[in-house]
Amino acid sequence: MGISASSSPFGRRVRLAVVGGGGNALIGPVHRIAARLDDRFEICAGVLSSDPARSVTEAARLHIARGYPDVATMIVEEARRTDGIDAVAIMTPNDSHYEAAATALDAGLDVICDKPITNDVDSAADLVRRARSRGLVFCLTHNYSGYPMVREARAAIAAGEIGPLRVVHVAYVQGSLGTRVEDLPDAMSSRLKWRLDPMKGGLSHVLGDIGTHAHQLLSFISSQRIEAVLADVGAALPGRTTHDTASIILRLEGGARGVMFVTKAATGAENALSLEAYGEAGGVTWQQASPNELRVLRNNRPAELRTRGLPTLHPLARRATRLPPGHPEAFLEAFANIYTDFADLVAARRSGQPADPLASVAPDALAGADGLAFIDACIESTRTQTWAKVRQIS
Amino acid sequence: MGISASSSPFGRRVRLAVVGGGGNALIGPVHRIAARLDDRFEICAGVLSSDPARSVTEAARLHIARGYPDVATMIVEEARRTDGIDAVAIMTPNDSHYEAAATALDAGLDVICDKPITNDVDSAADLVRRARSRGLVFCLTHNYSGYPMVREARAAIAAGEIGPLRVVHVAYVQGSLGTRVEDLPDAMSSRLKWRLDPMKGGLSHVLGDIGTHAHQLLSFISSQRIEAVLADVGAALPGRTTHDTASIILRLEGGARGVMFVTKAATGAENALSLEAYGEAGGVTWQQASPNELRVLRNNRPAELRTRGLPTLHPLARRATRLPPGHPEAFLEAFANIYTDFADLVAARRSGQPADPLASVAPDALAGADGLAFIDACIESTRTQTWAKVRQIS
Amino acid sequence: MGISASSSPFGRRVRLAVVGGGGNALIGPVHRIAARLDDRFEICAGVLSSDPARSVTEAARLHIARGYPDVATMIVEEARRTDGIDAVAIMTPNDSHYEAAATALDAGLDVICDKPITNDVDSAADLVRRARSRGLVFCLTHNYSGYPMVREARAAIAAGEIGPLRVVHVAYVQGSLGTRVEDLPDAMSSRLKWRLDPMKGGLSHVLGDIGTHAHQLLSFISSQRIEAVLADVGAALPGRTTHDTASIILRLEGGARGVMFVTKAATGAENALSLEAYGEAGGVTWQQASPNELRVLRNNRPAELRTRGLPTLHPLARRATRLPPGHPEAFLEAFANIYTDFADLVAARRSGQPADPLASVAPDALAGADGLAFIDACIESTRTQTWAKVRQIS
Amino acid sequence: MGISASSSPFGRRVRLAVVGGGGNALIGPVHRIAARLDDRFEICAGVLSSDPARSVTEAARLHIARGYPDVATMIVEEARRTDGIDAVAIMTPNDSHYEAAATALDAGLDVICDKPITNDVDSAADLVRRARSRGLVFCLTHNYSGYPMVREARAAIAAGEIGPLRVVHVAYVQGSLGTRVEDLPDAMSSRLKWRLDPMKGGLSHVLGDIGTHAHQLLSFISSQRIEAVLADVGAALPGRTTHDTASIILRLEGGARGVMFVTKAATGAENALSLEAYGEAGGVTWQQASPNELRVLRNNRPAELRTRGLPTLHPLARRATRLPPGHPEAFLEAFANIYTDFADLVAARRSGQPADPLASVAPDALAGADGLAFIDACIESTRTQTWAKVRQIS
Repeated sequence: MGISASSSPFGRRVRLAVVGGGGNALIGPVHRIAARLDDRFEICAGVLSSDPARSVTEAARLHIARGYPDVATMIVEEARRTDGIDAVAIMTPNDSHYEAAATALDAGLDVICDKPITNDVDSAADLVRRARSRGLVFCLTHNYSGYPMVREARAAIAAGEIGPLRVVHVAYVQGSLGTRVEDLPDAMSSRLKWRLDPMKGGLSHVLGDIGTHAHQLLSFISSQRIEAVLADVGAALPGRTTHDTASIILRLEGGARGVMFVTKAATGAENALSLEAYGEAGGVTWQQASPNELRVLRNNRPAELRTRGLPTLHPLARRATRLPPGHPEAFLEAFANIYTDFADLVAARRSGQPADPLASVAPDALAGADGLAFIDACIESTRTQTWAKVRQIS
Repeated sequence: MGISASSSPFGRRVRLAVVGGGGNALIGPVHRIAARLDDRFEICAGVLSSDPARSVTEAARLHIARGYPDVATMIVEEARRTDGIDAVAIMTPNDSHYEAAATALDAGLDVICDKPITNDVDSAADLVRRARSRGLVFCLTHNYSGYPMVREARAAIAAGEIGPLRVVHVAYVQGSLGTRVEDLPDAMSSRLKWRLDPMKGGLSHVLGDIGTHAHQLLSFISSQRIEAVLADVGAALPGRTTHDTASIILRLEGGARGVMFVTKAATGAENALSLEAYGEAGGVTWQQASPNELRVLRNNRPAELRTRGLPTLHPLARRATRLPPGHPEAFLEAFANIYTDFADLVAARRSGQPADPLASVAPDALAGADGLAFIDACIESTRTQTWAKVRQIS
Repeated sequence: MGISASSSPFGRRVRLAVVGGGGNALIGPVHRIAARLDDRFEICAGVLSSDPARSVTEAARLHIARGYPDVATMIVEEARRTDGIDAVAIMTPNDSHYEAAATALDAGLDVICDKPITNDVDSAADLVRRARSRGLVFCLTHNYSGYPMVREARAAIAAGEIGPLRVVHVAYVQGSLGTRVEDLPDAMSSRLKWRLDPMKGGLSHVLGDIGTHAHQLLSFISSQRIEAVLADVGAALPGRTTHDTASIILRLEGGARGVMFVTKAATGAENALSLEAYGEAGGVTWQQASPNELRVLRNNRPAELRTRGLPTLHPLARRATRLPPGHPEAFLEAFANIYTDFADLVAARRSGQPADPLASVAPDALAGADGLAFIDACIESTRTQTWAKVRQIS
Repeated sequence: MGISASSSPFGRRVRLAVVGGGGNALIGPVHRIAARLDDRFEICAGVLSSDPARSVTEAARLHIARGYPDVATMIVEEARRTDGIDAVAIMTPNDSHYEAAATALDAGLDVICDKPITNDVDSAADLVRRARSRGLVFCLTHNYSGYPMVREARAAIAAGEIGPLRVVHVAYVQGSLGTRVEDLPDAMSSRLKWRLDPMKGGLSHVLGDIGTHAHQLLSFISSQRIEAVLADVGAALPGRTTHDTASIILRLEGGARGVMFVTKAATGAENALSLEAYGEAGGVTWQQASPNELRVLRNNRPAELRTRGLPTLHPLARRATRLPPGHPEAFLEAFANIYTDFADLVAARRSGQPADPLASVAPDALAGADGLAFIDACIESTRTQTWAKVRQIS
């Protein structure tokens, strides 16, 4: 067991405040489970609602010691305590990420934030600069890159096992917008409503919500940025104004080509995320539906079925593993891996020790800004009907 | 999300003490993760080692507030506190389960215990009586019955969806003893040593370690006991004294027939647990390698692929689910489901409220005693080379 | 058993001549197996080589009664016999399809031809006209549309089972050009050489060789044409002049959008052809690696696993089936289905009876011309870097 | 492409007569397709019905030149022709195999026969002796051993790749008798009726019909005989007299242990045949549902996914292959492999050349007799409720 066996250089759990996730939020419980899983955090404070009274009630309901009316107050109050928070976890709707994150960073707190980082590149780039200038940790919960076998893919490609990358194919296929949910009375939960609202959920719902995952995953396994896109983003359902489908032809900085297909209009599809990457010497394929397995292919030879937990995997994959082979881990464990990376990075920073390079692969603010630049390029390409370069944030 | 949304009638987390799981124990971290996952427990005390000083150190390392030298002391001390423990979780080697469990039950504490419950039927039956006489909760972590789609299988069969059960086929195939691990110098970790020692690990290693899982799983999905067996239990590797393989022909109380095949000598197999059950109207098949899916079969019609998280599943399966379809849950979540069942049962008992019938399916002491009676029958059948009846504990 | 049970209205087997397929040709044996499988043809003549003597020898080796030096001679000689050929099967390199096909059609013979039909749209459109004007049968061996479960997909979509089509995703991923086969001495067999030569193999190797399959398959299951493309066709391997990879964004005539990804540079991939199509009411997914199964998806309900041979399938799928469920059929049987369709169509035409509408779905010359128009549009789009309309042949 | 490329030492196709397979017989078309597939046979004579007139009509319908009223007449008449038959293929109901086979062998004709060879060991042993004494070829269509990846398993085990065999698990699970088909008016086709009649179909329907396949397959891949069984054979459905389910604990001659589970009462199962075999160094697993793939397992290392068509396979598997990887072959091709083995063996014998050792693995009369001895032992064990030795035919 890799991750849970790692002894923290910090000597205690990271004291974490949550921002958001109260009420019937979908992603809040996921963040809190992920934070609890490896016992590296103590969730001791939070802003669970914009209604001050409700924030306190929700905190109590969730066994969180201190509920605050807002982020600013929380930061001030916690700073006064000897056992005040070390870090902030943000899981509010997209349009409020920026303010909470900037406030926390400015107060010298490390931040872990739900994706997409913000709704526009400039504010994301601003967070990159703020975190960097103060040397703070900023992790983004692109949870799919927490899967051990996705990390094995990254390590295998980085080690040259498949040779120079030439062809990629990423598909992220969901069905939640396959029917006209927006037309049904009461059909849209409040959760769905803010997501489909461009002001809150971002310019392109499908790209912001799941396209950024696909983008980050491809960058993550290839250790490359996407350079240019030829895209068609829009609504598959006639009359819909929200983007539900994005077809994207890609060029990576190393010259690899391929496609990314992202849709929420695939009626009946659950959450089918799949990756293929091929180099001159071999290929790797992975599907989230069978997350404990990575296939490594070579021409004219049997494929290799690498399974999570094997001692022959790369350290990056072994570290992200709790259980032996045949005892499957899944979505929540992958999500928890990002949190545990964050715990390691925070502990290292606060202890003045060098960060574990294996934890440093966790998606950061720059990955978030890159994702938004990618969205911008896809939208521009759709408008101009020709190739668009992706702005390279630095 | 089912399970985590359930609001406890109890109003607070269950205060839990752990017995065992210190040092490099394999199963200890799994129990603690399972207890933490849904935030229904506060692990506040423990006996982490038989060495008193080490018990305290280990408790501190694991962020457990109070480390005790032994179970008896812990119980006395905790009883004096206003915030003392409600329940005890036992995860020591098999041969010490009985004493810890009996002590806790006698002190009026609810118990959750690793499987097998004990190493012999009589002591198990004794625990059944102790728990029952005091009306206490006793759960056994037969974690595979925590999988939502295993629960769907149980609910579907109970609802008559496949008609009267006729044929069953269960296989639990592992490879850890496929090579001669016992002959290699240093090859056996201390973990493996106690397991292969009949005095500590039980008379039949393969049956105690994984056969009891297969047995419980079959009883669980069929809601039936196994009545008689025709078995061949022994070592597949020549010269080995430890049982590594059990071939068992079964007769269920309702007349169904079939086989159970359990081995740890299948070199290269990881943890391949599969279930098939067929009635006159249809069948169900499930494999732990794809735990989020249950196939429901009918003659001359397309099979139905039921996936975890679907709103059309039986309440028993929906309750055991945290994430939407396509966001896989796995081993740790299934294990956590047993813990959360336990939390619900403890909270109900302590609140004087009726227990949730959906939580009451959690494996109990009687399931544990049944498992040991099954082992006895398999060993007897092997010796006599003919059918043996399974003693029915009540 | 569907197909083999169909009694021909013709009363005898179709007398078939083969053109090509001698020597070590790859596809020749496949055509001949397909023609033999259902015993609907008697292969009694052939042009097996451009060398007259060798043509005769090869015919004898292959148990073909009459070997001829060239197509023209064969047609003249056979016309003189009372037991002369009814039809011609063409399996030569792409650049010679046209002449052989035109000659046969002009002689009033039905034709079955390997794909792509020709190397350019105009010659293909010419064959469309020749066949049509004489009322002759022309089948193109787009064998993947012979798979029973692909036919089930077509029938299901046509019957409205998934509602109006909105999203499609087709991938055809091979690895044969993933390494630099063209640089190795002797690495390229003569088979590969003509294929990579644009004059013989067509302007775009990857599109002609496998892209036309993907295109036909999508048109086949959707019963729609592709209207416009935004494409990037080229070589994934630096320095290569042959097209090995095509990324294509699609717009179908009914408004559906999606992508087609076709590559031969995916090192280690074998022949991974997959289809997904989603409408407002549901979706279908199929993969050639598991050809006997079609998944039919619906939001919030279990998927349906339709398997070849089930009595509940559409007649179109049942007719294309020989064996009961669980007795898998595969590539050769699918290929044979095209041949058996052809036999039915020829028998009907020669008997003056109406053709079985289930046989009439077999790919024809128009499907071939459409495929070439699609290639042209992809190449044009690549050049202009913007959308290109696909010429609609009629 | 292996098998079809093999040039026969014989110079012409084997002239084959079929016995049985007329009317709506299930297996007749399969035999004829298998015989046609590789073009190694000319089916030129047959006894298609016991009604002489109908035999002639059926022969004509099936494009078979010469229909005869009975086997004896056919043999006499064909012996008079210069182009008379070389061999006989028997596909009648089980109880008539013996007479047809004995007659053909006594006439010096090679025989290929459907399984089970006969309905009792003695008659099977008699056929073994008759074939052997005259040096004739006798093949039994245990078609599952024709699958290339089953042959790879045999070759891998024989080559010591998994070390000494220790554990086996074979399951053959069908659903055709899961419901009470025998109670429904008209529900039983004539096909099913003779099969369920012990006088025609054999003492134990499930063992004769599919148990012999499972038995042969296990012997085939292990190159070992089964020495002893502990079995429970009977009807899973109350009140049924026909055997529908057999649970069998096995001991192989080399000491390996395991189980075989064979049932036709698994409602909804199609034809699920699976094999697992483990030695001290590794394991192999195969399922008929994915016949083109064999998994080779080793402890603590990635599994190897061997796929049909790879150049790295053993010659035994490569020879049994027609198409490249990724172009799946299936049931009919496996069946054809037995026929092509037979063609090779017949051609070698008639040419006075040594038989290809790779063809010699085809199941023979001895394999058939072994299968019946296995059935006898299973029935005896069921009766005595203890172990029974399997009679070793020689």
